[in-house]
Amino acid sequence: MINNYIEHTVLKPNATVEDIKKMVADAVKYDFFGVCINPNYIALTKELLNGSRTKIVTVVNFPLANSTIEMTQYQTELALKLGADEIDTVLNISALKNKDYRKVELDIKRTKDVCQKHNLKVILETDLLTKEEIATASKIAAESGANFVKTSTGFVKNGVGAKVEDVKLMYETVAPFGLGVKASGGIKNYKDALELVSAGATRLGTSSGVDIILGERNV
Amino acid sequence: MINNYIEHTVLKPNATVEDIKKMVADAVKYDFFGVCINPNYIALTKELLNGSRTKIVTVVNFPLANSTIEMTQYQTELALKLGADEIDTVLNISALKNKDYRKVELDIKRTKDVCQKHNLKVILETDLLTKEEIATASKIAAESGANFVKTSTGFVKNGVGAKVEDVKLMYETVAPFGLGVKASGGIKNYKDALELVSAGATRLGTSSGVDIILGERNV
Repeated sequence: MINNYIEHTVLKPNATVEDIKKMVADAVKYDFFGVCINPNYIALTKELLNGSRTKIVTVVNFPLANSTIEMTQYQTELALKLGADEIDTVLNISALKNKDYRKVELDIKRTKDVCQKHNLKVILETDLLTKEEIATASKIAAESGANFVKTSTGFVKNGVGAKVEDVKLMYETVAPFGLGVKASGGIKNYKDALELVSAGATRLGTSSGVDIILGERNV
Repeated sequence: MINNYIEHTVLKPNATVEDIKKMVADAVKYDFFGVCINPNYIALTKELLNGSRTKIVTVVNFPLANSTIEMTQYQTELALKLGADEIDTVLNISALKNKDYRKVELDIKRTKDVCQKHNLKVILETDLLTKEEIATASKIAAESGANFVKTSTGFVKNGVGAKVEDVKLMYETVAPFGLGVKASGGIKNYKDALELVSAGATRLGTSSGVDIILGERNV
């Protein structure tokens, strides 16, 4: 059932309390794996979920990967304290482009140190990377303690988000290490979702969770 | 001279060391007011500026305004320690949309507490606001200790960035309180720059600083 893959997502900067209430209600109603929200809405989301089994996923150093590692570690620590179950962070894209692979690795390791048992997903931002960089980044993430690699933030201008070919490449690279793959960005319907799962996605980040479920029921 | 208005800006998530070197070299060559860079490049920028009078401007809680205030305060504190001269933060857009004006005000005050004598600019993200919200946000920023209001992050999908009419409205609202106005987003040439300054902008955030200067020389 596709619902177990879905992280129902609201990350827009102008999200209101009403938006969060609706998202949480839908996530519970359709029994999604989790909700994915910004750190400033963790506390409200936890309160609204009221002990339901729906997981709280949040984002750190998001979406530009523009913080120093100390800033990201502190943000992660506070997010977990507020009640986040899983952390989605962004790969140090600049360091990758600078071919400073040691820095890419260290940033993931240091964020994972803070996460401990909580899942850490590393967003590669595939729209900005070459195929070779996607493979390199996936391998570094796998060797640095990440639990998932994830395609996209959803905030790249003119970006397309999750592509089947990228998910395939990421899956082939990280599956031997036991990591999962989260596809995200531009996933609009059940057909998209099914293709990405077939390519190796084990999670789907989307704001169209309800449409996807309704699509599954109509098959 | 238009150079005194310009904060030469590189905020893209895939900025390389080479991009930063070029930006700093141009900023010094053309004697721009400052450079505007992400927190992860403050240390390198400071080293490259090597004591020049060019100011270092950085961004916090950027571009989504998605952090809690404690996260933003810590990010601000570290950014200043690394050598930032001025801080550009993003208005709590969600709180504004929720009509929680007290929270909008408190977040600015608490960030300014960390900035102390350093200038704090509050980015309204005008593309996401109504005219009434722009006026309300400008007034709250002015009453909360901000030194500037700023139009845009440059990261809104399909956003247009700095508009003359918005800069005018912001200027009329904050000038009586002694604040400046930073126009940013989509400023491409000398004509754009001049119109925004005429409308009340006292700073221009742009990655087209060199084109603007060359346009001025050709007038």
